[in-house]
Amino acid sequence: MSPQCGRVSLVGAGPGDPELLTVKALRVLAAADVVLFDDLVSPAVLALSRATARRLHVGKRGYRKSCDQDLIERMMLRYARRGLHVVRLKSGDPLVFARAAEEIAALRAAGIPFEIVPGITSALALAAATQCPLTARGVARAVELVTAHDQTGALPAELAACRHAGQQRTLVVYMGARNVARLRDRLLAKAYPAATPAVAIAGLGCPHERRWCGELAALPGGVAGLPADLPVVIGVGAVFAAAAAGATAADPGMDIEPRAGRA
Amino acid sequence: MSPQCGRVSLVGAGPGDPELLTVKALRVLAAADVVLFDDLVSPAVLALSRATARRLHVGKRGYRKSCDQDLIERMMLRYARRGLHVVRLKSGDPLVFARAAEEIAALRAAGIPFEIVPGITSALALAAATQCPLTARGVARAVELVTAHDQTGALPAELAACRHAGQQRTLVVYMGARNVARLRDRLLAKAYPAATPAVAIAGLGCPHERRWCGELAALPGGVAGLPADLPVVIGVGAVFAAAAAGATAADPGMDIEPRAGRA
Repeated sequence: MSPQCGRVSLVGAGPGDPELLTVKALRVLAAADVVLFDDLVSPAVLALSRATARRLHVGKRGYRKSCDQDLIERMMLRYARRGLHVVRLKSGDPLVFARAAEEIAALRAAGIPFEIVPGITSALALAAATQCPLTARGVARAVELVTAHDQTGALPAELAACRHAGQQRTLVVYMGARNVARLRDRLLAKAYPAATPAVAIAGLGCPHERRWCGELAALPGGVAGLPADLPVVIGVGAVFAAAAAGATAADPGMDIEPRAGRA
Repeated sequence: MSPQCGRVSLVGAGPGDPELLTVKALRVLAAADVVLFDDLVSPAVLALSRATARRLHVGKRGYRKSCDQDLIERMMLRYARRGLHVVRLKSGDPLVFARAAEEIAALRAAGIPFEIVPGITSALALAAATQCPLTARGVARAVELVTAHDQTGALPAELAACRHAGQQRTLVVYMGARNVARLRDRLLAKAYPAATPAVAIAGLGCPHERRWCGELAALPGGVAGLPADLPVVIGVGAVFAAAAAGATAADPGMDIEPRAGRA
């Protein structure tokens, strides 16, 4: 490694609220020369980077025109090779549904030092926002973080593919809005009863956040009623029975719109 | 609610490193009058509470003499009713394997205001420590957080109970040391090949942290070689193939002891 070589920090930006950054993420972000940030990173978090830092939007969203993954990696390496400290800022945690594997492989291949700074992933933010523990004795002793689409856009074949998939288990679905009807059908087919509590939050952690709570059978209708331009995280399982109560306790003015009848 | 009523913050202390607290957790911890903390909360995190705060150890560990859950809840309510701000400090995230359901139910029943402050759960800390993303395109598109024992101490019946359980999936096992042989046998029975990469970390995030990396078949031997007095988190899945490389890249002096031959 030449003494001029920079370094890269893969940093989790959490759900959006700057207070939910880790202390380390805040420190690293405030010191970076270059910030390469995703679409879902909140402006409030981004504002914590140095005024003189170069901030580059390298957003990617499913089903949208997006910055090429190769290009992101080339930018990351180029700035680091100039001796700069690059923060690769990803919403949530950098190692959960964030394409970090490719970026880490590129960094290793190039011999550029890097570090990982974890973040609050959507599943934890969903739990906190609804005040519903993801595990609870006698209710759920496993938590499953899944995505609702594979690389072709289809529902992953192995998702809830056996009858044990719903037992004592909490499911949190990332990027689930597009395939929500197929998701619901799959979950109902073997693993979950129709009345299983479900919650969907659009824009979790952002100022325009909107929620739906209801039964799994009604989930597609609930999601359809949420703003289409915000990412949606979905929770399914008995632990979410108290989701409406929790939301109310946290903020009596919260806009809870049960759309169970609209599915 | 009387104006004298206090409040409770259920706070995630993360894996141990104070820098991995969220900004909000740090702020809340520094302001609390009373801190009720678990066994696994690190002294470095605890030291961030106010010098004048009352710090009470209410530790619980599986298979050990421990503070009764009812007693914890009574203490929490008693201090809050005196108008104090109570922080209930739990290692990792407060809503993942942390008995928060009982505490939230007690708070709701008593009408005491509370908030949830998320934390970096062990699965995310494990990923960061090994520099292994929990999801990776073509390798893993689901992450499962499980415990290796049910309320009776037995391996949960539904754990990896069908042949899909290992497909495109990363498993992170909390509190897995005691049942590790049965866990290995169960995983090998249907879901995972014997050569599946596995990693076990004792005292993740604490100064005495020790790691083992190897193949799933050798996991019980690997865990047996770790200090018995530290909690162990286990990762299983193809994403951990680079665990040894990651650890080396992060810290060339790290004590990686492959014990694959000792199983």
